[in-house]
Amino acid sequence: MTSTLDVTVSSTDPAPTAARHLVCRGCGAQYPLAAQHACYECFGPLEVGYDQAALARVTREQIEAGPQNLWRYSPLLPVGQDPASRVSLNPGCTPLVRGDALAAELGMTGQLWVKDDSANPTHSFKDRVVSVALTAAKGLGFTRFACASTGNLANSVAAHAAHAGVPSVVFIPSDLEQGKVLTTAVYGGDVVAIEGSYDDVNRLCSELTETDEFEDTAFVNVNVRPYYAEGSKTLGYEIAEQLGWRLPAQVVIPMASGELLTKVDKAFSELVAIGLVPDTPWKIFGAQSAGCNPIAVALHADTDVITPVRPTGIAKSLNIGDPAAGLYALEAVRRTGGWMDYADDDEIRAAIRQLARTTGVFAETAGGVTTAVLGKLVAAGRLDPSAETVVLNTGEGLKTLDAVAGLVGPTHRVKPSLRAAREAGLLG
Amino acid sequence: MTSTLDVTVSSTDPAPTAARHLVCRGCGAQYPLAAQHACYECFGPLEVGYDQAALARVTREQIEAGPQNLWRYSPLLPVGQDPASRVSLNPGCTPLVRGDALAAELGMTGQLWVKDDSANPTHSFKDRVVSVALTAAKGLGFTRFACASTGNLANSVAAHAAHAGVPSVVFIPSDLEQGKVLTTAVYGGDVVAIEGSYDDVNRLCSELTETDEFEDTAFVNVNVRPYYAEGSKTLGYEIAEQLGWRLPAQVVIPMASGELLTKVDKAFSELVAIGLVPDTPWKIFGAQSAGCNPIAVALHADTDVITPVRPTGIAKSLNIGDPAAGLYALEAVRRTGGWMDYADDDEIRAAIRQLARTTGVFAETAGGVTTAVLGKLVAAGRLDPSAETVVLNTGEGLKTLDAVAGLVGPTHRVKPSLRAAREAGLLG
Repeated sequence: MTSTLDVTVSSTDPAPTAARHLVCRGCGAQYPLAAQHACYECFGPLEVGYDQAALARVTREQIEAGPQNLWRYSPLLPVGQDPASRVSLNPGCTPLVRGDALAAELGMTGQLWVKDDSANPTHSFKDRVVSVALTAAKGLGFTRFACASTGNLANSVAAHAAHAGVPSVVFIPSDLEQGKVLTTAVYGGDVVAIEGSYDDVNRLCSELTETDEFEDTAFVNVNVRPYYAEGSKTLGYEIAEQLGWRLPAQVVIPMASGELLTKVDKAFSELVAIGLVPDTPWKIFGAQSAGCNPIAVALHADTDVITPVRPTGIAKSLNIGDPAAGLYALEAVRRTGGWMDYADDDEIRAAIRQLARTTGVFAETAGGVTTAVLGKLVAAGRLDPSAETVVLNTGEGLKTLDAVAGLVGPTHRVKPSLRAAREAGLLG
Repeated sequence: MTSTLDVTVSSTDPAPTAARHLVCRGCGAQYPLAAQHACYECFGPLEVGYDQAALARVTREQIEAGPQNLWRYSPLLPVGQDPASRVSLNPGCTPLVRGDALAAELGMTGQLWVKDDSANPTHSFKDRVVSVALTAAKGLGFTRFACASTGNLANSVAAHAAHAGVPSVVFIPSDLEQGKVLTTAVYGGDVVAIEGSYDDVNRLCSELTETDEFEDTAFVNVNVRPYYAEGSKTLGYEIAEQLGWRLPAQVVIPMASGELLTKVDKAFSELVAIGLVPDTPWKIFGAQSAGCNPIAVALHADTDVITPVRPTGIAKSLNIGDPAAGLYALEAVRRTGGWMDYADDDEIRAAIRQLARTTGVFAETAGGVTTAVLGKLVAAGRLDPSAETVVLNTGEGLKTLDAVAGLVGPTHRVKPSLRAAREAGLLG
């Protein structure tokens, strides 16, 4: 695939993209807006670079006049300015839920919010990155959609492809939760179970992108990854807009590759630079599971050396043992004065129940990780309990029911009669 | 519970309710806005009656200036005008998804839409009725929330109660899908599994409302049912607003009690009466499963005698064998010139996959029922394939995974190497 995105700015185009090039996060080398994800000079990862003057012209009013989904932020994205160009189930504008009872249990006196991205069409934040990636992929001329996935991404790619009428092939570890496998396979695309870890899946997909047979295939998180990653910024934009165009003091974010964390930080930086929010400080906190904690371990050891691990544990959506954006996550957390921690499986299960019981939000294991780590950060004095805090739930409890299957169930079982109800203690 | 809702209209109240009384759907007798669901004169069901002059003052602009959830329609609801009064996870404004590929497969040439209510906070349309019921319940002074449920309603009541910090007790048949039981129990309220059918559960709940021990308990679909049922109107309002303030020619609706169907019809009638949409004809179609089809069978037999059945089959959320609003559903379908049909379990499973494959929407069994019946209505010439049609998906596929568990899964299983991928045929 040798085409590039059309960023020609004509005087009649009402909303041209502000994206101008791909830029290496390592050495700063610039490339055209093509299907490229690594720097030819230093092999560093590429991200989308913008015309800062064009970004600076974006206004709150322009965004607020947009649709009630992530495309309201299209002036800040590389693609999707033209509604007809979008390949999307229109995710975004998910609820920012008050967490007053959770805050009280954790001893927090500042306002606590849960940003609930399980409300997206396929019930995870991945719909954001997929919408942006596939819109770019279509613009670049790709005719098949693919991904390497720990589950949620496969759900989203398969659903988006079905909606768009485009063939898809998704690659997943063969030991995924049944819920995530079925929710992917039901859309009728190809689902390839790989007998290995996510990191094995990811390596295979990188190899496949180099084959002739996959030349027309966009792997959302491989060969169009720079566009894909930009989709995560919308989570940061939404939090700020939903707070009334201001930044929270603290935000707790789950980490798999670490990319989501870096992009929420990038979103906050952009909003300040553009002048859409006041320039107030924020701290970024990262959450991993004890079964896959290479980034948090590096932070705790005060090193930049992230040692890959072979992931274990129930938080499968976070099980990336060799995290591509780990270094950048460390940088963001150190720069903002945040911290990272990790939670084990029992803590994750307890936190899923705690979040549900106190807020009405039923999270998948990743949300349990984030909630458990929030509690640990407060207990350890790393997170200020008196400052406003947003905790991210990135996925849906219905996809990882096994996490609570042995722990919750009917509290009573009775025959259908008033007498039986009385004998069961239901009448006091 | 002897209190009534405060409907005092003061000159300083910016948005008073237009609700004025409860009115018997049988004999027309009127009662105050209290916790009463049956007529003292004829035992007929009560519904909310409005000041028609007040309704007529509601404008499109007023609604469009409201929040992006069902409370934008609060001028047309009995409660919730004051945001502080709401007990709600703020459902509504769910996607109206184009169904072009599904229409093509079914031989339809008119525009087809899927109204996807799985996008609600607990992933079914029940969040709508629960939000309105619990807001009324709080206004009436109840201090515990309850319901009789086939699953989705229990999810929603438990989640809303957790969010509001109010105790809950939900009653379900003991043979429900595991997904729905866990998604209810995780919120930490009481979950009572009844060894019987939904109709047994419902009867027990009716008896419990009469006991002293449950005097302070609002059963959303028993003693505050008139308010509860009004929440379903918002589905009809949204369809009309999302189509640009006009009515679709045809709408296909799943039936359990039959109440949802009657309330969508009521919503359309109200919008015409108020003048918010042009007065164009609409036809209402009802869908049941073959395992629980008493309303459709009565229509087919051209009778008003609805013979209760003992439900069977996988569409458990629709398994109400003695449907409370069946007669009114028959009336609405006959009056508008629609029809009803039913689908068996194999047809439901196939339709779930067809809907997912063609639209990207993964429905629970009830959505499979509606999609399968849509196909049957087209094939039988009962539904005009050239007229605009909306089909309702009322719930989420993740809650009824067993329906597709044996039918879909990975299409390939390979070791993580290019060679293995080639041998598996993935490279052509």
